[in-house]
Amino acid sequence: MEHKTLILVQCRDAVGLVSRIAHVLAGYNMNITAMREFVDEGEQQFFARIACDGSEAPDDARLLTALKEVLPEGADVLVNPRPEKRVAVLVTREYHCLGDILTRHFFKTLGAQVCCVIGNHDHLRKFTEQFSIPFHHISHEGRSQEEFERLILEALAPYEPDYLVLAKFMRILSPEFVERYRERIINIHHSFLPAFIGAHPYRRAFERGVKLIGATAHFVTSELDQGPIIVQQTTPVNHNFSVKDMVIAGKGIERAVLSKALQLVFQDRVFVLKNKTVVFE
Amino acid sequence: MEHKTLILVQCRDAVGLVSRIAHVLAGYNMNITAMREFVDEGEQQFFARIACDGSEAPDDARLLTALKEVLPEGADVLVNPRPEKRVAVLVTREYHCLGDILTRHFFKTLGAQVCCVIGNHDHLRKFTEQFSIPFHHISHEGRSQEEFERLILEALAPYEPDYLVLAKFMRILSPEFVERYRERIINIHHSFLPAFIGAHPYRRAFERGVKLIGATAHFVTSELDQGPIIVQQTTPVNHNFSVKDMVIAGKGIERAVLSKALQLVFQDRVFVLKNKTVVFE
Amino acid sequence: MEHKTLILVQCRDAVGLVSRIAHVLAGYNMNITAMREFVDEGEQQFFARIACDGSEAPDDARLLTALKEVLPEGADVLVNPRPEKRVAVLVTREYHCLGDILTRHFFKTLGAQVCCVIGNHDHLRKFTEQFSIPFHHISHEGRSQEEFERLILEALAPYEPDYLVLAKFMRILSPEFVERYRERIINIHHSFLPAFIGAHPYRRAFERGVKLIGATAHFVTSELDQGPIIVQQTTPVNHNFSVKDMVIAGKGIERAVLSKALQLVFQDRVFVLKNKTVVFE
Amino acid sequence: MEHKTLILVQCRDAVGLVSRIAHVLAGYNMNITAMREFVDEGEQQFFARIACDGSEAPDDARLLTALKEVLPEGADVLVNPRPEKRVAVLVTREYHCLGDILTRHFFKTLGAQVCCVIGNHDHLRKFTEQFSIPFHHISHEGRSQEEFERLILEALAPYEPDYLVLAKFMRILSPEFVERYRERIINIHHSFLPAFIGAHPYRRAFERGVKLIGATAHFVTSELDQGPIIVQQTTPVNHNFSVKDMVIAGKGIERAVLSKALQLVFQDRVFVLKNKTVVFE
Repeated sequence: MEHKTLILVQCRDAVGLVSRIAHVLAGYNMNITAMREFVDEGEQQFFARIACDGSEAPDDARLLTALKEVLPEGADVLVNPRPEKRVAVLVTREYHCLGDILTRHFFKTLGAQVCCVIGNHDHLRKFTEQFSIPFHHISHEGRSQEEFERLILEALAPYEPDYLVLAKFMRILSPEFVERYRERIINIHHSFLPAFIGAHPYRRAFERGVKLIGATAHFVTSELDQGPIIVQQTTPVNHNFSVKDMVIAGKGIERAVLSKALQLVFQDRVFVLKNKTVVFE
Repeated sequence: MEHKTLILVQCRDAVGLVSRIAHVLAGYNMNITAMREFVDEGEQQFFARIACDGSEAPDDARLLTALKEVLPEGADVLVNPRPEKRVAVLVTREYHCLGDILTRHFFKTLGAQVCCVIGNHDHLRKFTEQFSIPFHHISHEGRSQEEFERLILEALAPYEPDYLVLAKFMRILSPEFVERYRERIINIHHSFLPAFIGAHPYRRAFERGVKLIGATAHFVTSELDQGPIIVQQTTPVNHNFSVKDMVIAGKGIERAVLSKALQLVFQDRVFVLKNKTVVFE
Repeated sequence: MEHKTLILVQCRDAVGLVSRIAHVLAGYNMNITAMREFVDEGEQQFFARIACDGSEAPDDARLLTALKEVLPEGADVLVNPRPEKRVAVLVTREYHCLGDILTRHFFKTLGAQVCCVIGNHDHLRKFTEQFSIPFHHISHEGRSQEEFERLILEALAPYEPDYLVLAKFMRILSPEFVERYRERIINIHHSFLPAFIGAHPYRRAFERGVKLIGATAHFVTSELDQGPIIVQQTTPVNHNFSVKDMVIAGKGIERAVLSKALQLVFQDRVFVLKNKTVVFE
Repeated sequence: MEHKTLILVQCRDAVGLVSRIAHVLAGYNMNITAMREFVDEGEQQFFARIACDGSEAPDDARLLTALKEVLPEGADVLVNPRPEKRVAVLVTREYHCLGDILTRHFFKTLGAQVCCVIGNHDHLRKFTEQFSIPFHHISHEGRSQEEFERLILEALAPYEPDYLVLAKFMRILSPEFVERYRERIINIHHSFLPAFIGAHPYRRAFERGVKLIGATAHFVTSELDQGPIIVQQTTPVNHNFSVKDMVIAGKGIERAVLSKALQLVFQDRVFVLKNKTVVFE
């Protein structure tokens, strides 16, 4: 019987890193079945995602130590990260992303465990609860940003989520909140060519007569919508599209892009370096 | 034997326009084989592209008059617009768009007659001339914008082009020049999500880690890169792409998008209304 | 206040059809806001989808009679077809299409009323019922095809569905059954280039090393998977995809293609002529 | 100054292969900057494409020997394959693929040297020769297949091409000919869902009302159009497309797919295993 091991490495680049890692694995009698490696030459940073087979399961902690010993100081190494992530979903009123997440969760194909849904409106409670997922309504109204976020953090705490998914959560999170879940909050938003920053982007895209509507899934940083991009895709529109039709097309592409981004993140295929990602598809 | 007639209409919307047009055509014993009609309800503007068959060829001028009589005042009507447009191509140094245009012209599949190529550099002379197309080198160096454009207009005059194609022409044209070829100048440029306005867009797209590169073909107006969009498409990129790789991907999508836009314009499928287009694909 | 009217016409082609239709509408003081017209010249068949605005709602039956009077004998004309279709979904065990349909139904964006789900397995009962939709388990085991289909027809009868959606229903329906819902049964299946007819298509696509997996949504006819195509799309795969990964990719594209096809059908944008469709997107 | 080395490996899989290769490279003080590795588990076959930097250029022959020593017997290893391939293009009458190849060749962005064009018709001579490329007309008429192919081989011999590109070459090559350029002949052909095998595929696709037209680039084997697939893509069509329009769309997608396939092959990114490819994009 085969034991599968997944190893993730991100560290300063140096001569012979692959050799050193591979040497350690050969010592454990593990065979590399799929390896993705990338060096960002500008940033002198090394990334690897290594899938191995072995006739015996290694002691993960000892393997981790053995790998760290041969890698540059400060290397980020993960051996067998939790295969099924724990996820909390934050929503407002729109369901197009949540529907996809909960359906795939129901049939165990999301690759993650949805532990709860938090809404700043109560609108999606019934839909969520019919999937037997806890729904927490935490309104932002009549509350300071600080109190609003404190209540969310308190609601999240018992679930110990690995990731927060902002599935059309229409509130901006403070840098302090974001720091608590650094590189672990995933957001989705529509994107246009050219961009229409500010209010009423669909109305302005309509008035400009754009022929494409896009969506961007990214990690959240303290700078609004400027975090590392995970997935981007576009869908065609034309003069027959009213503003409302463009909104519908936008929701479709948002759902597809978030779905793809979650799949990549939950399979440990996405690395972050500064404001960019390395994605081993 | 069948005679084919193409009719283009753009006018203020009113009740019964299709009925009136169709009544005129029936009077000429012409059968509508393909009709595309659209009303921009916000702008109260009516657009139609009508292809007809008849056993006899109509007198185009009389048909035009008959149509104008039943349409609102000021209607733009064209009966059998010139099927093979006359086109001048303006270039600088990049060949990826020009190569496609001249190859298709050589094999008579461009749907247009390339009457000349004008370059503000002499770089593409040999390539152009081997296709037996006249090449005019009109440098912008040491000249005022006014003189530069006057020389271009003089070079263009004898060819009487229907359209100017800016196939990576890297100079900005003045509003006066643009007005001379109003809604008849087609430009192509790269596009990103988000947009990177200003210098070094590919470098900045690279630094931002974008996952898509796009291109936009549009009619030129006096406002830089803000004219009515004809076609937009995107192509995926990823962390493996260097800045140079992104530039190559950008050229590929620019070529495809300009090619598609020219095909639509040359087949009289594109109408302009204010800053938008109606495209009957 | 504006009253909107939708008119669908399919008939033998003849000179002046658009004129005649438009004349009738003008007589009702109705303004054509969007018209799509197509003539299949090989088949001499005329198709039109006409959206109108009027200050008064017409008497639909009188308008229908007036239109039929000016059209060739045997013309198919519909005035204001039921805007929200009644739909029954037939399933086996796979949920990827059903999940999308029920989620959009829940939020009233499907453009149709799901009246029931029928499964030849009981597998999808819980998922269906949590959306408060009736689920009927009608097993094919231990039954003749005739009896199996009779039971389905009996279950369907009280719902009077406009359309049957085969959302991965893995049984072949008899020509007699199909005839009962002629041009009203929509099926989805995977498609490859080249095709892999027969058993284990994904295994064979894997062994052939295909780089694309596609899906086709079509109306069901008595010839298996040979009915009029409504929508086709593809998604890229590569050597990293196991057979299982290809199956997952296939499900994703099937869901997207069926979703698009249903949207088009429910908006009365799809006409059938022999074994082809005319789709006014 | 950095010296770049490219290494390609295909061999029987074994424990520790990456370790052994990396160990050899570290011994040459070479740093792996981009590595793509894949194990086909079904076939027990290992593939790697390794790009390295070093402060000194290695002795390629010695490095090759050192690598072979640590790899399983019979390993295919290439160190610094010729960066600019020599290519002969075989054509019949259609220009859409040849035009793209010669334009990119002219501007030195093909990544290959076009040494000659061979046509079984003389139709593309003028177009080819205006690019100063030798054109050989070798007619198949009045000749046996054997003689026809012998003449082609004789014409090719002095050029010593690495690859033959069948850019719409409409003759079938014998197994003996194919064997002479085993895994070095690249073909492009249209593809449909479903496939239409035999005569008049576009007419049949039109009659079937397909919504997609595709193209497949593949290595040629002795079985017609059944060789390892390199690239596949599709483009949408609809009921407005005549047979002729479908042919035009087919040519566009053929050109794009062949262009992409050549880029991948010329950059040594394509490995062949039995009837499949591993493509490190």
